[in-house]
Amino acid sequence: MRTAAAVQKPISVARFRPTAAHALPAAVFQSSIRVYYEDTDAGGIVYHANYLRFFERVRTDWLRSLGVHQREIAAREHLQFVVRDMAIDFRSPARLDDLLRVDVRVIDVRRASLRLLQWACLDDGDARAGTSPGEATGKPPGPPLVTAEVKVAAINPRGRPVALPDWLLARFSSPQGSANGQA
Amino acid sequence: MRTAAAVQKPISVARFRPTAAHALPAAVFQSSIRVYYEDTDAGGIVYHANYLRFFERVRTDWLRSLGVHQREIAAREHLQFVVRDMAIDFRSPARLDDLLRVDVRVIDVRRASLRLLQWACLDDGDARAGTSPGEATGKPPGPPLVTAEVKVAAINPRGRPVALPDWLLARFSSPQGSANGQA
Amino acid sequence: MRTAAAVQKPISVARFRPTAAHALPAAVFQSSIRVYYEDTDAGGIVYHANYLRFFERVRTDWLRSLGVHQREIAAREHLQFVVRDMAIDFRSPARLDDLLRVDVRVIDVRRASLRLLQWACLDDGDARAGTSPGEATGKPPGPPLVTAEVKVAAINPRGRPVALPDWLLARFSSPQGSANGQA
Amino acid sequence: MRTAAAVQKPISVARFRPTAAHALPAAVFQSSIRVYYEDTDAGGIVYHANYLRFFERVRTDWLRSLGVHQREIAAREHLQFVVRDMAIDFRSPARLDDLLRVDVRVIDVRRASLRLLQWACLDDGDARAGTSPGEATGKPPGPPLVTAEVKVAAINPRGRPVALPDWLLARFSSPQGSANGQA
Repeated sequence: MRTAAAVQKPISVARFRPTAAHALPAAVFQSSIRVYYEDTDAGGIVYHANYLRFFERVRTDWLRSLGVHQREIAAREHLQFVVRDMAIDFRSPARLDDLLRVDVRVIDVRRASLRLLQWACLDDGDARAGTSPGEATGKPPGPPLVTAEVKVAAINPRGRPVALPDWLLARFSSPQGSANGQA
Repeated sequence: MRTAAAVQKPISVARFRPTAAHALPAAVFQSSIRVYYEDTDAGGIVYHANYLRFFERVRTDWLRSLGVHQREIAAREHLQFVVRDMAIDFRSPARLDDLLRVDVRVIDVRRASLRLLQWACLDDGDARAGTSPGEATGKPPGPPLVTAEVKVAAINPRGRPVALPDWLLARFSSPQGSANGQA
Repeated sequence: MRTAAAVQKPISVARFRPTAAHALPAAVFQSSIRVYYEDTDAGGIVYHANYLRFFERVRTDWLRSLGVHQREIAAREHLQFVVRDMAIDFRSPARLDDLLRVDVRVIDVRRASLRLLQWACLDDGDARAGTSPGEATGKPPGPPLVTAEVKVAAINPRGRPVALPDWLLARFSSPQGSANGQA
Repeated sequence: MRTAAAVQKPISVARFRPTAAHALPAAVFQSSIRVYYEDTDAGGIVYHANYLRFFERVRTDWLRSLGVHQREIAAREHLQFVVRDMAIDFRSPARLDDLLRVDVRVIDVRRASLRLLQWACLDDGDARAGTSPGEATGKPPGPPLVTAEVKVAAINPRGRPVALPDWLLARFSSPQGSANGQA
């Protein structure tokens, strides 16, 4: 059987560093995140480590949109996703009450891991506040505040790398799972 | 001028401890919160301190629904809300991927502080996943997992208690601001 | 066998509210905690929910000082401690770089739960920065910034309350475990 | 005046990826960090974003050891340090109750930024539990669990990059500030 791993052609991104909104790739999935007091620090801006929480939330929402619920696959497939490595650029700060749009794009699917690009932009104020996660508005967002290249790997309960089951690979390589298929 | 502080009659709640869903008061505002990995701990459940983050998010969403944006009022009114005290009961655990419904009800409005009840219940699965914050479904939720009575006070930049401006008191004592008005 | 549960006489604390340092009870254990950027929020002060993290760190250090390591007892005794309820007063803010002294005192030991008082004071600057956890300096700290009464319960892997093993009860009712024995 | 910026010769580290303890560079500063429940997630391991908190704590302790207190320099020099970019490898997980040793080494000092290597290893159990921050034991730690290359920049209150004052540059280029000077 030809699996997703076979059909994917990795995009070469030594390190993801777009400097303007127009240089951002097409997203596969996006979600809105409001900045609350808990996310900020005494510098008056979002504490840097919290963007990793934001990015993980959006990866989770994206997995849900593909029918992949992490508690379920941990119980049924004995499989858990972990972040293996991450290169992250903090370009501009976000502040209390800001609405962020966080995007995810799959750039490589392997047997036991995924490589993703993620970025956070300022959303256009409250207009989108009530929008459901995953719905793209098509409106141009601001330039990226934070960009990241993330490698996510599948591990078993003993922490060893495991191959993704075929049904998961198939979903990651569908147009909803990966924008590569549309190129 | 008769202010909200004058018309509000405080409900007597020595300590808020409803044991079943039917004993919960009518909410003024509610919002859905998804449980992500960041919210859980090695016990497999939501880390107790994180319910305070959830409750603060919903208070913020409720304030926004009344037109009160905290960064704005900090800049314009030189006023910040802080939690003064809190009595919180952790009844049952929430887990990864759970969707929580968190409610808020105003029980007392004073010149420089508010007293609120807040509670978190398990929401009815993914049906509500895309619902906008603040929209009540009317469906009965599960029994409360966590309940809290919270005193929120207004302070100035030097940390001193300050009287809430009349326009804010008026909003807190409106039916949307406080369910007291409906009783 | 006479267990700790039998000999302990609970101190009556409707709700723990000392207003000055001299009204604080004798601590059983204390530890120092530095305030980092991660702990603060855009209000320039420690985010309220983070005191629950501080209090849990000091409970953990206190348990360690009694030879109780939580990962070990989870594996060997199938027992985990969870916070059941908490009444917390936020009196004065702490700020970036502050050194806090957090104290814990046992006020009641039951078969399946403990009741504790905990409070955080400003420590006397950097003098104590290198002091080991658990070492009391004897120096008078500032007035309490935050005080809490906390009920901690033991549960099994299915989340049901379980009796504490006798060796644990014995440690909690020793002078190091509980200041009650010294009164 | 010849400043630190002039004398520093940057080490070439395309991306910091040592795979064993012996490949780690000499640290300039190290500190111990205990893993508490707050740091873990439902996977039973330290949540990935929390290593950024750990690394920031140790950078803060290192700055303190050089006499640089961040609240002070924010007030006096109108200068704040922010993380500009970070490349981080999550090699092996840490767990509840683990004691980590986190090291920092300066690899480049510029007029308005620093480049650092940081890594976390498992410490040798409780032997070091009471050791003061900054004291190196000389004992070989385990292999690195997490490694990072971090660029920290100085900004002014409007978020613009600013040159570090000479006294700060001098401290960063001293043997305690930077191991480069010893090579």
